[in-house]
Amino acid sequence: MFLSADIIDIASPLILLNIADASALGVSDGDRIFITNPNTGKSATIPATVSETFVQYGTALLTSGANQFVGISSGDGVDILPAKRPSSLDFIRKKIDGGKLTRAETAVIVSDITKKVLSQAEVTSYITASYINGMDMDEVEYLTREMVASGDTITFSKKPVVDKHSIGGVPGNKITLLVVPIIASSGLLIPKTSSRAITGAGGTADLMEALAPVAFSASEVQQMTEKAGGVIVWGGATNIVPADDVMISCEYPLKINGRGKMLASIIAKKAAVGSDTCVIDIPVGPGTKIADETEGKVLAGQLVDLGKRMGIRVECAITFGGAPVGRHIGVNLEVAEALRILENKDGSGSLVQKSCEIAGIALEMTGKAAVGNGADAAMALIRNGKALSKMREIIEIQGGDPNVKADDLTFGPFIYDVLAPADGAVISVKNRALIDIARVAGSPNEHGAGLRLHKKPGETVRKGEAMLTIYAEKEWRLSEAIELCRNTHPVTVSGMLLSRIGAE
Amino acid sequence: MFLSADIIDIASPLILLNIADASALGVSDGDRIFITNPNTGKSATIPATVSETFVQYGTALLTSGANQFVGISSGDGVDILPAKRPSSLDFIRKKIDGGKLTRAETAVIVSDITKKVLSQAEVTSYITASYINGMDMDEVEYLTREMVASGDTITFSKKPVVDKHSIGGVPGNKITLLVVPIIASSGLLIPKTSSRAITGAGGTADLMEALAPVAFSASEVQQMTEKAGGVIVWGGATNIVPADDVMISCEYPLKINGRGKMLASIIAKKAAVGSDTCVIDIPVGPGTKIADETEGKVLAGQLVDLGKRMGIRVECAITFGGAPVGRHIGVNLEVAEALRILENKDGSGSLVQKSCEIAGIALEMTGKAAVGNGADAAMALIRNGKALSKMREIIEIQGGDPNVKADDLTFGPFIYDVLAPADGAVISVKNRALIDIARVAGSPNEHGAGLRLHKKPGETVRKGEAMLTIYAEKEWRLSEAIELCRNTHPVTVSGMLLSRIGAE
Repeated sequence: MFLSADIIDIASPLILLNIADASALGVSDGDRIFITNPNTGKSATIPATVSETFVQYGTALLTSGANQFVGISSGDGVDILPAKRPSSLDFIRKKIDGGKLTRAETAVIVSDITKKVLSQAEVTSYITASYINGMDMDEVEYLTREMVASGDTITFSKKPVVDKHSIGGVPGNKITLLVVPIIASSGLLIPKTSSRAITGAGGTADLMEALAPVAFSASEVQQMTEKAGGVIVWGGATNIVPADDVMISCEYPLKINGRGKMLASIIAKKAAVGSDTCVIDIPVGPGTKIADETEGKVLAGQLVDLGKRMGIRVECAITFGGAPVGRHIGVNLEVAEALRILENKDGSGSLVQKSCEIAGIALEMTGKAAVGNGADAAMALIRNGKALSKMREIIEIQGGDPNVKADDLTFGPFIYDVLAPADGAVISVKNRALIDIARVAGSPNEHGAGLRLHKKPGETVRKGEAMLTIYAEKEWRLSEAIELCRNTHPVTVSGMLLSRIGAE
Repeated sequence: MFLSADIIDIASPLILLNIADASALGVSDGDRIFITNPNTGKSATIPATVSETFVQYGTALLTSGANQFVGISSGDGVDILPAKRPSSLDFIRKKIDGGKLTRAETAVIVSDITKKVLSQAEVTSYITASYINGMDMDEVEYLTREMVASGDTITFSKKPVVDKHSIGGVPGNKITLLVVPIIASSGLLIPKTSSRAITGAGGTADLMEALAPVAFSASEVQQMTEKAGGVIVWGGATNIVPADDVMISCEYPLKINGRGKMLASIIAKKAAVGSDTCVIDIPVGPGTKIADETEGKVLAGQLVDLGKRMGIRVECAITFGGAPVGRHIGVNLEVAEALRILENKDGSGSLVQKSCEIAGIALEMTGKAAVGNGADAAMALIRNGKALSKMREIIEIQGGDPNVKADDLTFGPFIYDVLAPADGAVISVKNRALIDIARVAGSPNEHGAGLRLHKKPGETVRKGEAMLTIYAEKEWRLSEAIELCRNTHPVTVSGMLLSRIGAE
């Protein structure tokens, strides 16, 4: 059937048909349509949406998410045919029924995810089934290889190429903003792609965006890394492992993060950017994604195994994840905290320690520092100002202002201090509650929103002193964050009443 | 935020916002928006889609699927606010993680499904998780009760109220077109709601639509049943158990049909139409949904148990499902086959036998026939013409032509005979292949498409004689159906070579 095409700017890939055209084709809502651009021969298989009046008879309305595959202009003609049921649905069904997927079956699923042949609902079902039924290491390797093959890849002529990754779940874990300039200032390459916030209060890409643009193609990432030694970009813009972006958007609403998918997602991105040496930070403890050191070691073993299968030397560091890294959560608050360290205005605390430990492992793995001396070598690169200069070079090459200082970043303007209810010591903080408060306050969409934790576990506090300050850009968001803070008690002080029963 | 509203005629419930408005609200793609009609106060929580250019700044574009909850006219103003993450997502997550859902948790999930607070992807994840992890009978009862509560219900003052249901999977199972007029002509009430095809070649609602309109409200179903004794309508139009329609649309692409959800879906519809007596046909055998009699008995026990919990007397009949019921698959072909029996032009074969057995059980359960005499009593109602008159009364009350005859229904015009490759006896037929051939030929969307099975298992055939005739309304569909038939060999003849190895 030949229809006149109109394009609408909606990201989800859909073709909308008038009910009369759909009926003539024998197509119902959700069935797939094979679309061909008659001028170029480019084609795609896309789920159809049927409308009685919104789409005119004889017209096919393509969303821009669908048109990216065929490149039709409004008013052009388009050839459409009903498409057969994709076989990827049978393979997803096999996974639902507890089967093991072969490499070929995995290839079809990943390709149909990338080409948007599968709907969000179908991909979500695949993710749910893989999470519940699990995947063995062969299945994980197949998924990793097919995820790499789903998009652009980078090969560097110079070796080694370092990469780092932190398993999420710990608030304020902005160490990438320190690790990348340290590694790059040592003369190594580190083409770091990062994600935006999924369930956290801000991903590294959200943080870096406060300093410079983060959306680049794979070849731009390669060129910038070759020039500056490192970059910190948003992986979602690169077309590197694009299948992962679709899967992450499906994981987001239900906060699903299955082990096999997690392993594949991490290692595929390292393989796709041409990395051969990788340090992975595994925070453990209550409130993180990994309950304890035992589980952390299992995960580390799986990452090392998968790395070996993919030709990447992986070392993992199990770190303390029971409290935020540093004292700040939220885009500008975290960026300022990292910049202050690079500016040598703040040389102590968990953020600088952890960043130097992680960077130090990479320096040792690549022979840039003697074994046991990596963290000190990393610290020296901060102290001598090389890491700061390198960070400015990275900001500049990504198109940001290289003269930015920690003090330039603004917070608030709506601010609330959470006061200590009693004298005592801070016993614990609740990571999840802190993240949720920062999110409700507006992070990461609103750069000035977030919180500062004045008191961390082990520190003493006096009644009426501020334990926590919440920052928001909108007054109603501050109110909601305060309400959430009252309901969740993110900081526990030893002298505090935990509950009061029988009071009148 | 107050925006000007536009309405577009798309069934999926969405609100589309300009990226600038979304950003001012702090809302990303997929986050939920709380929409209020400022004139009436009606409100809804709907997932947002963000567009850079398709939606003008200051405008909210509501799909008709979203607007059904708030009733705004194009050009009116609409109040929007970011909504909190629905707690139903936490309960779905609990099910994903293997937890048991309470009645209260189930109520929130079913309500959010019905009100379209949850996206198709989120509902699909719930269905996938319930399928993989299973549900215990308490969870199934909670789901059943909440599904009933999700929509309109009917209460009849006259009792008993009969209902019937067939577990799907058997092609050509058009017995409802006979059972309903038989039961109604005996003086009982039978308000039958049916589905359209999910994975079959035609649901009962698709068949009935060849004779009369099938879309009615619950109160129309009640009034018509009180007048004519019975109806055969499309459940999807009634707002009876609307949550089920959403869930079925999510089950469709992956053909998921979990046991707990299947039980709830069947019994909820019986409870919602006020039925107290129900006969359930459970076809078993290769190619059906239920593998064998043992599994059929387990299912029967579960249906009887759930019926008891809901105050419905359930009896199940385990039937032979290894071959089609009757000889026809496809809308007009099946309807004509049923009408010929009512017209007393064809009194033998599996269709009339099975219909009378099933109707007979209901006649016995309600005292309309002595125990052991139900099937004969049912057959008598066909022989004396009462069932045909009743069917005409039902067709008329639903707005169809009561004078329709089997011979009025047309098939084709593109027709292909599949010839026997050798002399012999038909050993077996493949249900799934027959259904797929009928679907590819155009069924159920194209009423004249389908197939006639000339030879059923146990019947003899001569080489070159037609075993099967395929009918299609479009030539290209006939070609595809022929190709599928060649690849799937739906009929096995004893004299046929099954394979030929080593031939040159």
